Amino acid sequence: MEKLILDGTKVAEGVKASLKERVEELKKKGKTPCLATILVGDDPSSETYVRMKGNACQKIGIDSKRIHLPEETTTEELLAVIDELNEDEKVDGILLQHPVPSHVDERAAFERIDIEKDVDGVTSFGYGQTALGFGKYPSCTPAAILRIIDDYEIPVKGKHAVVIGRSPILGKPVSALLLNRDATVTTCHSHTQNLPDIVKQADIVIAAVGRPEFVKGDWIKKGAVILDAGYNKGNIGDVDYDACYENASAITPVPGGVGPVTISMLLKHTVDAAEEKTFN
Amino acid sequence: MEKLILDGTKVAEGVKASLKERVEELKKKGKTPCLATILVGDDPSSETYVRMKGNACQKIGIDSKRIHLPEETTTEELLAVIDELNEDEKVDGILLQHPVPSHVDERAAFERIDIEKDVDGVTSFGYGQTALGFGKYPSCTPAAILRIIDDYEIPVKGKHAVVIGRSPILGKPVSALLLNRDATVTTCHSHTQNLPDIVKQADIVIAAVGRPEFVKGDWIKKGAVILDAGYNKGNIGDVDYDACYENASAITPVPGGVGPVTISMLLKHTVDAAEEKTFN
Repeated sequence: MEKLILDGTKVAEGVKASLKERVEELKKKGKTPCLATILVGDDPSSETYVRMKGNACQKIGIDSKRIHLPEETTTEELLAVIDELNEDEKVDGILLQHPVPSHVDERAAFERIDIEKDVDGVTSFGYGQTALGFGKYPSCTPAAILRIIDDYEIPVKGKHAVVIGRSPILGKPVSALLLNRDATVTTCHSHTQNLPDIVKQADIVIAAVGRPEFVKGDWIKKGAVILDAGYNKGNIGDVDYDACYENASAITPVPGGVGPVTISMLLKHTVDAAEEKTFN
Repeated sequence: MEKLILDGTKVAEGVKASLKERVEELKKKGKTPCLATILVGDDPSSETYVRMKGNACQKIGIDSKRIHLPEETTTEELLAVIDELNEDEKVDGILLQHPVPSHVDERAAFERIDIEKDVDGVTSFGYGQTALGFGKYPSCTPAAILRIIDDYEIPVKGKHAVVIGRSPILGKPVSALLLNRDATVTTCHSHTQNLPDIVKQADIVIAAVGRPEFVKGDWIKKGAVILDAGYNKGNIGDVDYDACYENASAITPVPGGVGPVTISMLLKHTVDAAEEKTFN
């Protein structure tokens, strides 16, 4: 059977190349797209993620406005910072790096982000619009999964997609996006019974569990397409790659699969938002 | 096998009895809950629905403010009416009867309803909050289905629920509510392949297709619970009742199943909204 390795790095390069051109067009009109990132506290991996996102912006000419708040920041203080960024005309997108420290009401902070600047797709409002089919900025990992599907022209309509995971920024929105593309969608989670039997029916498997090598090779129907959104310690995905590769017709590697495309979707949404302001 | 007929009329009576008491409490505090209904045009069945809802309000002491706009109402005119009702302190809930005439942008009208008054659960914002687990007013038919499940203590956690239909006010939100109750949820629709095989796996079947007797008896696993949200001409549900009854352990009849509870959920949300204003 022919095997397709879904090369996220290549997909991301394609996205970024076209963004670079769009950023240049915007700059000719006097507008530089700007992503504001907020980091609360000193979690080293969060710091790394925010830095990566800032660097990715820089590479294609997007300004990044980095705000680093101390660990002891209160919810109210964080909300005030978000309010300021909502008001700031230079800022096109706002990214609040999660998790925030446990004493902060993360949901309240997410909800405070202006829908027009919610380029990371974290508000319930944005989620609702996405699920009902007219959202502008779905959260970035689901958007990345759909982008890979589109770039590789993987058929979705009428296919059975099984999503393992139901988080607000991954399992739920990717289920919604696939449903809107006319897939039959089953959403699974920790309480799902007979998970292997359910996954075995899938034409498309989305692994979004956050547990290393959770999805086993004998769960996979011959010819299924596997998209692994997991990213666990040691660069390990949610899918037991070698075993699943055997049965799959197409699969994303980790690293180099969904991850790089996710960041490019954040950049794309930021440019989309800047264009919306500039051209509309 | 023991059979349970899920008696929606009885469930609705229970809901309304408790609402009556809550309305009396509110009136003692000088507040009468008020539902505004908007009907655009002269569709006879829409007129009937709006009248039924108004009468149901009256019976438990809720004021209803009925607004009937002519067929030729423009989107802008309708939005202006909604804006007024959003501002009106006396109005606790707003129901826009759908469908509106085809020249009106129904989605724009729904979206204009203030989230605090969206007791019919039609806004994308309300949908997003419901799906992420903190919505106050899910749309009324999904809320009714969950209410029947609760009243009859039907287990949901870990069960496989198959929802047939994916409309914004029925299939999608009921899928979301069941997922949040820890069911494994499969959402099916017109592009689903092998629908009978998928339904056959369901512990809980939600029929929300809008086609008479669409769900056949041999699609039903022995012991499944069937909730029929269909309401087609001639009082016929989406489920072939007699045939499905054979295999089911519990089933809603049509009429007298989901329908009456739906209206009681609209009343409940209106009272909830009035209490929120009065006691908070």
